[in-house]
Formats: sequence, C-alpha cells, structure tokens
Amino acid sequence: MKVVVFAGGLGGSRLARALAKAIEPAGLTIVGNVGDDVEILGLHVSPDLDTILYALTGRLDEGKGWGRADETWNALDTVAELGGESWFRLGDLDLGVHLVRTEALRRGEPLSTVTARIARAFGLESALLPATDERLCTWLATPAGELPFQEWFVARGHGDEVDGVRFEGAEAARPAPGVLEALEAADLVAIAPSNPFVSVGPILAVPAIRAALERRTVPAVAVSPLIDGRAVRGPAARMLARMAGGTSPAHVAAQYEGLIDALVIDEADADAETGVRTIVTRTLMDGAEGRRRVAEAVLESAAALR
Amino acid sequence: MKVVVFAGGLGGSRLARALAKAIEPAGLTIVGNVGDDVEILGLHVSPDLDTILYALTGRLDEGKGWGRADETWNALDTVAELGGESWFRLGDLDLGVHLVRTEALRRGEPLSTVTARIARAFGLESALLPATDERLCTWLATPAGELPFQEWFVARGHGDEVDGVRFEGAEAARPAPGVLEALEAADLVAIAPSNPFVSVGPILAVPAIRAALERRTVPAVAVSPLIDGRAVRGPAARMLARMAGGTSPAHVAAQYEGLIDALVIDEADADAETGVRTIVTRTLMDGAEGRRRVAEAVLESAAALR
Repeated sequence: MKVVVFAGGLGGSRLARALAKAIEPAGLTIVGNVGDDVEILGLHVSPDLDTILYALTGRLDEGKGWGRADETWNALDTVAELGGESWFRLGDLDLGVHLVRTEALRRGEPLSTVTARIARAFGLESALLPATDERLCTWLATPAGELPFQEWFVARGHGDEVDGVRFEGAEAARPAPGVLEALEAADLVAIAPSNPFVSVGPILAVPAIRAALERRTVPAVAVSPLIDGRAVRGPAARMLARMAGGTSPAHVAAQYEGLIDALVIDEADADAETGVRTIVTRTLMDGAEGRRRVAEAVLESAAALR
Repeated sequence: MKVVVFAGGLGGSRLARALAKAIEPAGLTIVGNVGDDVEILGLHVSPDLDTILYALTGRLDEGKGWGRADETWNALDTVAELGGESWFRLGDLDLGVHLVRTEALRRGEPLSTVTARIARAFGLESALLPATDERLCTWLATPAGELPFQEWFVARGHGDEVDGVRFEGAEAARPAPGVLEALEAADLVAIAPSNPFVSVGPILAVPAIRAALERRTVPAVAVSPLIDGRAVRGPAARMLARMAGGTSPAHVAAQYEGLIDALVIDEADADAETGVRTIVTRTLMDGAEGRRRVAEAVLESAAALR
C-alpha cells in the first residue's frame, strides 16, 4: 500500500505517524509544507518538516507540539543576552539540524536532498519531501498589513485577523523531486488535519501538485482539522470563519473542492453535509489510540471509494 | 595609565585579565589575534577573541582554558548525529556568540564593531579589538603540507612539526579602527605570553601595527611563554626549537627583535641573556596571585624603562 500525505506541522505529523504505523512506513510519502520556512540568525529553519521529522522519529517535545524533547536553550539565551533575534524559539538540539541544513543549502544542495539526508540519519523510514525545493513564502493579509508567516504566527502570536493568504513564489515553483512520482504511484492521497490555508494551502499552491491531485485516479481523503467548529490548536477555526464564512465540515471541504473524494470528520459533526463522502470517527489524535482510529478511518474510506 | 596588550587565546587572556585588574580596566586595550579565526558550519568563529572575552567577563571554562563555563553540547551532538562537521568543539552557549557575530558580519558589520557590541553586552570594561577587520589567515608549513591553523591545531592536535608560518592577507590588512589610536595613546605596550609564531605573529604581521610598535616612544614589554624551555600549554616550545633553534629566553626575545625593550622571564630562566632587559619573576599565571605578580612585573619593568 502506497500513501501520500500532505502535511503541515503538528496535525500533519500526527496523521503521518498514524499512517506510517497503519501501513508499512516505507509505503508512506509525506509532502511537507515549506511556506513557513524562515531565516533566523542566518539559519534556514523548516518548522513543519522538522516537526514531522521529530514526531516520526521519537524526538518531538509532545507537550509543546514542536521542537525537540529534552531540549536546552543555551545558544538562544546567549543570543538574547547579546540583543540578537531570540523571538523564534530555537533550542540547542534543534539548532544542530538548522546548522547542517543551512550549510548544505549554502553549498547548493537542494532542500529535498538535505532533508532526506537528515531523515535517514534520524532513522525515518518513510519518505519526507518538501513540497518544493524552491522559494515559497506564505504571507498573510491582516488589518495590520501583510505579514510574513512567522511574524504573524510566532512573533505576533497569530493575534491578527487574516483576510487573505498569498504564497510568494508558488506560481513558478516546481514540485521537489519525488513528489509527482509519489503521487503517480500512490493508492491513496491523504490531506492531514492541518490548517487548510497556511499548512496545506502552500503545498496545493504549487501548480503541478494541484494539477496532479486534480487528475488523480485514486481516492483522496482529507481529515478535518475542526471538531465542533473548533481547531485542536491554532487559528484554523478563526481563519475559516473569517475567510470562508463558517467553521462547519462543509466549509472545510470547500477548501479542497475538486481535490478530495471524502472528508473524515469528528463525531461531534456527524450530521454535516459536505458535498463529499464523510467518514465519522473521533478525530482527536491525542495518543496512539486516537491516531490509530483516524488512520483506519482514512484507509477504510479510501477502500470504500475504490 | 593606558596599556595596550597584544594577546592570543589563553595566555593572552590571562595577562589581559591581570593588567585590567592592576590598572583601571578602562585603561586597557586588548588587541587580539584573528589569524586562527575559522568558518565552521557556516559560522564565523574567533577563538582568541572569545577566550579573552570569556576570561575577562567570568565566563571562561577555566579548566579547559577555552569555551564557556557550564557549557552544554547539544547542538554539536545533533550535528555529529547528522554526519556534520563536529571536530571543532562549539558548545551551545558559545554558539550564541557565533550566531550573532556571523549574522552581523553577513550584514556587513565589521568584526571590530560586532566584537565591541558583544563585549559591551557581556560587561567587558576594557576595549577588545581584533588586530584587523580584514581577512588574515594563519597557515602552517608542515611535513604533511601547508595546513590552515585550525586543521593543524584542533583537527590534527598540533602533532605536525612546523617549518614555517604564513599569514594570508596580512600584507594588505589594515589595523582595525582603534588599534593605532590605542598604540599612540599608550603608556606601555605589552606582549602576552602567547605563542610568538601563531598568536602574536599574526598581529605583528599587520604592517601598520608592526610599524607603530617599531616607532614606539613608550616601553614595550613581552612576557615569555616558556618556563625552563617548556610552554605552559601548546606547541610554542616545539615550534621555537625547530624554527628558532632553541627555547631559551634569548630565542623568545629574538622573535620580537626591535619590538620590545624588556622580557619578563621565569625564575627558572633567571640567568638568561636575551639582548634586552630581563625581569625575573614567577611567570605561571595559574591563579589570581600569579596573574597579579606578572602584571606587576610588566608594569614595574615599564616604569624602570621610562
């Protein structure tokens, strides 16, 4: 069984982890969001790729939902003491990844290559691919002006309402090597319960990825990031309410119009009409059992669609 | 009282610390070696400047004689796990300095400016100046070929004999802002008991610094790095033996011919003839008392020379 999953950070990592366990890990290809990649202190940071990497190799700080377990903060403490840029929380263990990645990128190695190298060293058995090796940056239109993703999300704590999302560079971006091949070979495409606008959106903004999904011959199934109109974490609900006019499963499904055949929704939303087939389960992946349940729902819905 | 001290790493930091305590800290200008600066993992590392900075602000790992006290090594452990460059030991606290420095240099800030900024943030009351803001790299001619300083010193543990030293870029290098002004205003120039070839040599290789020292109108006093023909630490004795033909105080003094008026030597070398005035004391600076004694010897010899 071959599955491709489109994933943002934490929600993405949870579904990816569940799918890797439900099928063979080697059968899973994770296509990760790079729209929130950011240069901090001269280092190229890929927060979503790293969250996935850490989660699937037992290195994630599960409490925080980002960064490394057993992390220390000495380098950043020094940076703060020196008046440097310390708003973006880079731990010491985490920094090692950014140093290796940044050096590789400066040498001209594509992001996909260094990501694969890091993933291999960490023992990841699934394939982890950035959506693109090219520059793709997520910008948010807010009442305070247009903000780059991390300024909006981390520095300002996603407190600004969002009126629109723009993916700088997306039009010209080509999928990273392996992405189209994985989609071509897949038995199922899954969209993780990540933020449709800022986590999955940047992936779908790569024209050849969207086109491949539009012409799919296998089932595509999304998992809703909302439970009873609320996001498990983050600003997805507020963004859907403001930009899509509501937070029902139908509003989620509309974000993926023409791109999915089914939507996995929570029991709390059981009666929803979405325009696509819905699969009802408990969608909260707050542990191994929750993850298993959602992965099964995704795989069963796909089987039913074939 | 205004003093300029030419300093390498540990020996340099010890005399600088002693002088800062003996006079007013604000009266001291430390001109630091940058010939062993190195780019590691894309970061600009200035080991000698940092050792001085850490030593004079209570941050040095006194046991190791380099790096930060209470250091952790998580970033480098990750780098090693990923197969990255981990031979040069960068601790987490230390990394914060390199990140801030490297970012500043990339923005076009001169090394002297960012060094001053870091020194101020760390509470250093003396002035710490790199010998030059320009690229000056120490190379060692060895039987194994010509090696850049840190490859010879750290990676190969200074195991290779040295037949010659070359300072790439020195001919064209101008003193960093403040160096000539400090020399002009000084009541005394001191040369720390650092390695004459690879610690003090790169400073003196900057033509305008050497010329300023040659035309000095105030006393210049060096402290011998050797005690009874042996270096306190490092390869100074072996290098002197091979390149200067011996390890006596006269061989040390000859390295600074025309540049010093006196040499502070250890009691173990009391009878030595050097061609310059000698001041005999116990030169081991293994504690506050030792440092005080050497600083006093330097200051008294200068007073006697006036």
